[in-house]
Amino acid sequence: MEENYRDLIEGAKSVLAGNWLGASTKPAPQLYPHQWSWDSAFIAIGNAHYNQERAEQELRTLFEGQWDNGLLPHIIFNPKAEDYFPGPGFWQTERSPHASRKPKTSGIVQPPIHASAVFRVYHHAQDKKRAAAFLEEMYPKLAAWHEYLYRERDPEGEGLVYIRHPWESGEDNSPVWDLPLKRIKLTKDMVPPYRRADTSIVSSKDRPSDDDYDRYAYLVKLFYDHDYDEDAIRTDCPFLIQDVLFNSILAQADHDLSAIARLLGRNPTSHHEAARRTTEAINTKLWNQQEGIYFDYDLVEGKQIASHVASGFSPIFAMAPTAERMEDIMHLLDSRHFSRLDGHSWTVPSYDKEAPGYSPNRYWRGPIWINVNWLLFHGLRRYGYHDYARRVRQSIIELPKSYGFYEYFDPEAGKGHGSDHFSWTAALVLDVLLEDAL
Amino acid sequence: MEENYRDLIEGAKSVLAGNWLGASTKPAPQLYPHQWSWDSAFIAIGNAHYNQERAEQELRTLFEGQWDNGLLPHIIFNPKAEDYFPGPGFWQTERSPHASRKPKTSGIVQPPIHASAVFRVYHHAQDKKRAAAFLEEMYPKLAAWHEYLYRERDPEGEGLVYIRHPWESGEDNSPVWDLPLKRIKLTKDMVPPYRRADTSIVSSKDRPSDDDYDRYAYLVKLFYDHDYDEDAIRTDCPFLIQDVLFNSILAQADHDLSAIARLLGRNPTSHHEAARRTTEAINTKLWNQQEGIYFDYDLVEGKQIASHVASGFSPIFAMAPTAERMEDIMHLLDSRHFSRLDGHSWTVPSYDKEAPGYSPNRYWRGPIWINVNWLLFHGLRRYGYHDYARRVRQSIIELPKSYGFYEYFDPEAGKGHGSDHFSWTAALVLDVLLEDAL
Repeated sequence: MEENYRDLIEGAKSVLAGNWLGASTKPAPQLYPHQWSWDSAFIAIGNAHYNQERAEQELRTLFEGQWDNGLLPHIIFNPKAEDYFPGPGFWQTERSPHASRKPKTSGIVQPPIHASAVFRVYHHAQDKKRAAAFLEEMYPKLAAWHEYLYRERDPEGEGLVYIRHPWESGEDNSPVWDLPLKRIKLTKDMVPPYRRADTSIVSSKDRPSDDDYDRYAYLVKLFYDHDYDEDAIRTDCPFLIQDVLFNSILAQADHDLSAIARLLGRNPTSHHEAARRTTEAINTKLWNQQEGIYFDYDLVEGKQIASHVASGFSPIFAMAPTAERMEDIMHLLDSRHFSRLDGHSWTVPSYDKEAPGYSPNRYWRGPIWINVNWLLFHGLRRYGYHDYARRVRQSIIELPKSYGFYEYFDPEAGKGHGSDHFSWTAALVLDVLLEDAL
Repeated sequence: MEENYRDLIEGAKSVLAGNWLGASTKPAPQLYPHQWSWDSAFIAIGNAHYNQERAEQELRTLFEGQWDNGLLPHIIFNPKAEDYFPGPGFWQTERSPHASRKPKTSGIVQPPIHASAVFRVYHHAQDKKRAAAFLEEMYPKLAAWHEYLYRERDPEGEGLVYIRHPWESGEDNSPVWDLPLKRIKLTKDMVPPYRRADTSIVSSKDRPSDDDYDRYAYLVKLFYDHDYDEDAIRTDCPFLIQDVLFNSILAQADHDLSAIARLLGRNPTSHHEAARRTTEAINTKLWNQQEGIYFDYDLVEGKQIASHVASGFSPIFAMAPTAERMEDIMHLLDSRHFSRLDGHSWTVPSYDKEAPGYSPNRYWRGPIWINVNWLLFHGLRRYGYHDYARRVRQSIIELPKSYGFYEYFDPEAGKGHGSDHFSWTAALVLDVLLEDAL
């Protein structure tokens, strides 16, 4: 641990303590009052270093909302927070025979980083006996979660799972969704009534547009109109996308689930094979050689979505690219499009700085997100691209240190946007500062 | 990098520079004038951090001695060093149809850590394009090496390969060999003429006994009398042992070969499956639940060899033990048998300090070896046993810092024994000090 980060570490721990709800952690004090799926996984990764019990509880509480078909919902609702849109009533998950009744949940998912989080909880645990019991408890739930994804979201057995809502990506207003959403023609009756909660707290210009929100709501209505039947949804849903980030996180989670299986004395082969098939499919179907980056694949249109988002580099997290391809990737990543070449901006912007529509403060259209940086940092380090990894790590540490534990950061000015006291920002700062401190 | 180790780093680099022969590195200035197999792999791991070209050359030169059946010999002879016993004439490898003719080599092997070394050369490389070409060059050689081991040393397909000479373990006079060697009854005519080179340089009381040497020589004669035919040797050889360290290193090398295959866009499944089978067999056949440690298995006697050597913990390097078993292992490792509980001794002694025959200065019967510590350090860190990992790492760094780059160290006095300026000691100090320096 670097000595001069003591205050930063204490500050990060305070953020997580302040957002603790008693059995889980909310992503931020006001904007996000419930439990979110991938937020909780990142939060557990931070807690793992100094509060094993809380790290375990975070994930245990999350999986209490898991559906009996394995679906792990993106929100587990906090009954005490009623203002948030979309709340339980909007999702109508009671129409599904599989949904969790208590707690109430949403009916979509988020990137499946949970096996990676569970492995880290074991890894950093002081009480290893307890941690081993935790692995035993979580393994069947994680296995069911991955089985759901491959069974329901990859019916052709390609190795790539699809998302059926932009929110499932975790990157709500990414430019990747612009074309697929624009394609959806709406009439008034197709959009259920809703009211936004996010723009009452943060500036609306930083957030997704109302047109986008209509489409988000429409898709949810489509899901409950189909009683959350995945076969029926698949047939009618105009938004089915094989997302680079989601599949890359899944592939690495397969690897980590394989490690968990080994730690439990079980056969890891099926998980390793899943990782292999998914990384192979990422390399085959999502790679774009001309652009030197991975693109999402639009299953409705039957083609790649050409958009230079930072998540297009995320296959490095799962060590999917070959050594040769990694050079192409670095050629783009370490260029003016994504990098800090001028000495007074930060890396890695969520969207190509040279692309049309880039904005340094608009959510997933330019700002730096600490979780994406964390994924890329680990990927770069796995390949031994240490110089660039060091720069990404510096952004993870120095942006919150200079500007606060914000949700996202302006790559030029540094300044934080969205929610302050943002849990995963704090958690991942803790992770990089506390890991393997020798 | 810790600032106060600058001199140590420079010293370690000087040791490697001093032992460089032009295309490979000798293990030490005088005692070992040729190229040794696992020494070179450790040396490459150190060079990888600051001299990519030399790290590649080290391994390339080593594999020039690979036999056409995949066997990677434990010595590649330096034609300029003629004094060493046993030299090329003693091995008579020209009797084998598979042996390398030029360079001359021995006819036995050493622990197969080479894929792990090659992966690290890529990982730390500054010139990644060149490093990728190196992976391409080495992959078929590494694959042939592993294929040889599984084909010729595991004819039953158990997942465990055997060694057929104590020297193949890399731990020449380990107490593990005492019983199997004692069992071999020799008459004068069975022992070929030989002359020891080692005891003219270091004190003979630190080295293997002459009785042992007779048996070492006898086994070599048995090999060339059988023209190095593995089937014939297997039938007659009185020394066939499934060694814990050898198999653990192989399992991790399988994992690393799997990673290399992925980096080259090849299917890694066979390597991963080999790792799985080997770790499973280590856990089934070599584990001793009562003792809480892994034991070698004597194929001639058909039973485990109950001897508490530090290498009995080496399956943690390949993450073979389950989480539960890891607790049993730590119970023994972190006890007076192997640990620094009194505050003025070092860890990890190569042999249980409470066992009969323990000696703090006799080669593999007590002294600390930096390469074994390095394997255990990585294993402990993989499981997140950070406190103990830190103590092992401290020994790797502080023993050479205080006493010099010796071959092995007295666990109580610290003092170095065997050869000074020992290459792998220097190389592995460099590895732990320079790794991922952020």
